[in-house]
Amino acid sequence: MEIAMIQDQIVEMANLEPAYMDRGTYFGDGVYEVVRSYDGRVFALDEHLERLAGSLKAIGITAVDINKIRRRVKRAYKAASIDNAKIYFHITRGRGPRSHLGGKGLKPNFFLTVTELGDQSQLKNKPIAVSTHPDLRWKRCDIKSLNLLPNVLARMDAAKKGCDEAIFVDEKGDITEGAASAFFLILAREKKLVTRGLGPEILPSITRKIVLQIAGNAGLTVLEKAITPWQATWADELFIAVTTKDIVPVVKFDGEKIGDGKVGKYTKLLTKEFKKEVKKRRWP
Amino acid sequence: MEIAMIQDQIVEMANLEPAYMDRGTYFGDGVYEVVRSYDGRVFALDEHLERLAGSLKAIGITAVDINKIRRRVKRAYKAASIDNAKIYFHITRGRGPRSHLGGKGLKPNFFLTVTELGDQSQLKNKPIAVSTHPDLRWKRCDIKSLNLLPNVLARMDAAKKGCDEAIFVDEKGDITEGAASAFFLILAREKKLVTRGLGPEILPSITRKIVLQIAGNAGLTVLEKAITPWQATWADELFIAVTTKDIVPVVKFDGEKIGDGKVGKYTKLLTKEFKKEVKKRRWP
Repeated sequence: MEIAMIQDQIVEMANLEPAYMDRGTYFGDGVYEVVRSYDGRVFALDEHLERLAGSLKAIGITAVDINKIRRRVKRAYKAASIDNAKIYFHITRGRGPRSHLGGKGLKPNFFLTVTELGDQSQLKNKPIAVSTHPDLRWKRCDIKSLNLLPNVLARMDAAKKGCDEAIFVDEKGDITEGAASAFFLILAREKKLVTRGLGPEILPSITRKIVLQIAGNAGLTVLEKAITPWQATWADELFIAVTTKDIVPVVKFDGEKIGDGKVGKYTKLLTKEFKKEVKKRRWP
Repeated sequence: MEIAMIQDQIVEMANLEPAYMDRGTYFGDGVYEVVRSYDGRVFALDEHLERLAGSLKAIGITAVDINKIRRRVKRAYKAASIDNAKIYFHITRGRGPRSHLGGKGLKPNFFLTVTELGDQSQLKNKPIAVSTHPDLRWKRCDIKSLNLLPNVLARMDAAKKGCDEAIFVDEKGDITEGAASAFFLILAREKKLVTRGLGPEILPSITRKIVLQIAGNAGLTVLEKAITPWQATWADELFIAVTTKDIVPVVKFDGEKIGDGKVGKYTKLLTKEFKKEVKKRRWP
């Protein structure tokens, strides 16, 4: 008799809760998005759905109707009725007995949660310390997949060092991005905003895209270029960008104080411009 | 109200089946093993549990009692009562709201299935064709983690080419291993068995270990060395080794016939020796 066991409990395979058979768990065979809302409005949903479509295509999950996903996200958000919410959703290739190939009957599975942003929202813009970690991830970090173990391990290492984010450094010695954020450097006198260019090494972050769009309003010109940890330490200002927290100033990098150790002028200006952008946009 | 959504169904977070909140699904934050039984006996369980302990340690999942896991595997296998079974089990870091760090209350989750090896068992030793694929995996392939998307994608690509296994090739142009197997080359006149040496680039395969142990009985000396696809094409014999199928002859490599296109002398000898080894060992 084919069986499953959950902790100490034996279950006949026929009675097993289907969630246990998901390829998301067996292989991380799926992709995800995190969207947030501001004061009752979902922000940048179209950009997130566009990226999701790209991720799905890259891993060959076909037959997903993005308009249906959009309707589900809106319906769920409405049902939750949370002003400042974090909306997480993933799509996996389907369920079935564990096999790499899976077979032809696979139907994509959709899963979503709407939760309070809560304290995170209050903590945002609070300056943080970061530490560097070897980038052990796979070679397609442009796909927002459920394979996130290296990110988890780096974040845990960073936390042990008293840091709030792990910054990945590739084999060449260049910074790629944060374990859960995009990474930016500001040269104040040159009025330059520097961040790694898009490619398979980093996620095409939506918040990054918006930051680059509003940089001009803050008087900065954008330079997409790889940065070394040394260059980061010598920068006038550093910050990370992430959907759930927007722009977060970085005032300590591998133990070194950045600038005068306070939130810099341009980071403040960008934060202001980001807020303007949020207000400008309407649902969805 | 915090909610979840599964396909089109909205569920209050408090009523959500806990399996959906597992870090295994959110991050692939866990490790696994696949063990098999022969005629009512679990094979090489100690070796698999030793590797599991190594994987758990490498990703910092502590507080797992390996003896307890051994008891669970035995109890589940006994309950299933399947002579030739595939026993899959994984341990994840725990459950909770999705956050990379997770928090202090995480308790590891154990999940296992016992299924019929069925047709796979009959098909074993049937020669196969393989194709090469860029090794896009992360830099710690020695950890048997749930982050298996690159393996799935390579296997799917291989299947499109009519191949039964994908052989990974690293950036230097050397073969690492199969997407779900160890890879071996035989030089008949030199009586050499060649396979990649252990390191972070490959999984310390249990079947590989046993093959290397019995190589001498088949008259072969072992050489642990990186092989290029060209060298593989010129070999006298090729095979892969995997827990669920033991030794599987490879007679086609990237479309090129290997040797005379039939199962080679040493592959047959090794298969015979492997069977002897299985008979020699007793439960557990």
